[in-house]
Amino acid sequence: MDKKPLILVTNDDSIKAPGLRKLIEIMQQLGEVVVIASEQVMSGMAHAVTIQTPLMPRILKDKKDYKEYVTNGTPTDNVKLGKHRLLNRTPDLVVSGINHGSNASINIIYSGTMAAVLEAAIDGIPAIGFSLMDYMPDADFSHVEDWILKITWKVLDEGLPEGVCLNVNIPRISQSPIKGIKVCRQAKARWVEEFEERKDPYGRTYYWLGGRFVNGDKRSNTDEQALADNYISVVPVKFDFTAHEYVDKLNFE
Amino acid sequence: MDKKPLILVTNDDSIKAPGLRKLIEIMQQLGEVVVIASEQVMSGMAHAVTIQTPLMPRILKDKKDYKEYVTNGTPTDNVKLGKHRLLNRTPDLVVSGINHGSNASINIIYSGTMAAVLEAAIDGIPAIGFSLMDYMPDADFSHVEDWILKITWKVLDEGLPEGVCLNVNIPRISQSPIKGIKVCRQAKARWVEEFEERKDPYGRTYYWLGGRFVNGDKRSNTDEQALADNYISVVPVKFDFTAHEYVDKLNFE
Repeated sequence: MDKKPLILVTNDDSIKAPGLRKLIEIMQQLGEVVVIASEQVMSGMAHAVTIQTPLMPRILKDKKDYKEYVTNGTPTDNVKLGKHRLLNRTPDLVVSGINHGSNASINIIYSGTMAAVLEAAIDGIPAIGFSLMDYMPDADFSHVEDWILKITWKVLDEGLPEGVCLNVNIPRISQSPIKGIKVCRQAKARWVEEFEERKDPYGRTYYWLGGRFVNGDKRSNTDEQALADNYISVVPVKFDFTAHEYVDKLNFE
Repeated sequence: MDKKPLILVTNDDSIKAPGLRKLIEIMQQLGEVVVIASEQVMSGMAHAVTIQTPLMPRILKDKKDYKEYVTNGTPTDNVKLGKHRLLNRTPDLVVSGINHGSNASINIIYSGTMAAVLEAAIDGIPAIGFSLMDYMPDADFSHVEDWILKITWKVLDEGLPEGVCLNVNIPRISQSPIKGIKVCRQAKARWVEEFEERKDPYGRTYYWLGGRFVNGDKRSNTDEQALADNYISVVPVKFDFTAHEYVDKLNFE
């Protein structure tokens, strides 16, 4: 690439999240960076788009090779705003994260971080979501930089197949060093929901969503297995939800 | 089935939507019905889940074989609440809709209607989303009943493959009768976003998401093609987003 690549950075943990700050710092080593992130925490917002209300981005920083916007939108809105309004050209790459907490397995479907990545892929832009297996606000990101550089550099250099983006999950820091990177598939795991039932001060029943993550997938080469073995999991992800193997098998006539 | 099937009905256009009322009326011909729907319009909320605030369902109707709850949650929340708290047994079927407007092609990724369906599929419950190609609040649903009965009865009778649910889109009413049902794949179409730029009374710039739907997919057997030909489109859908064909081709070592 002759010109510095233009990299759009977003996330779903809000503009203040330490994971976003770490990702910005890493991306600034690779290109011109524009951050467009939400003022509010957007965890669990999935692919939500704002259609009932207007979007009002505000510019916070405007330097050479670095701009930062905060918005009242969702992660998906932020990618749309970037592509169609705030950037002066199509970005070479969209990165999202570093999410505080797992987006492996079924978590992808609830994830605002990964929605931003899928939204970029729909528009044909190479995109990567990064998540750390530690949801704490003070999660330790000190071991991630070299891995993120390696993956991102390869994508900037070689691109990704059309319609495919990457869901990258990184083990939390521990005494055993990360063993490497495994390209793998989404495990068939799920949340077993446990709603806590409580009464409000007026005697009305309310519920708060909790839950327990259960991985019953014993197949080899899943993201959950890779992470359990202390590898970084990389799942190539697409936005065609068709179960192609059943198109010819189902018949309603 | 010896016992009447238990059918959970939800949608994303709010509990007041005419499309929901039509779906309830149809499902009452087939089994015991429990409605759990949102007080607010949840269009474009995708697979969002409520984790920052509690959920407070209220029962509105409690008759033999018919219950109706309204909630402050999203479509995904409503399915979770039904399965884990409000129903006394696992439903035999979850149906969502009838959506006012298309959920064909890429619209599935933004859809609260289809998120409810996918959420049921994650829990192994047969599930179908119905959408009409007319987003108007006063859309005419008078031609849909026999088709919805036919599809639903087959699914109640035969079930669906594990991890697969159905995205059903129905042409709007016209002078030409619907030609039949086509099982097909999600077209690779997308929204070309057009944000309108305006100024608020204080001179601040804001944007409102609009857009134009563009189908560049010329392959045969897509949902968009079936609908254009005046067929009902049925896309079998799965929640494994892995681009399996690239798992062995990508390499980051």
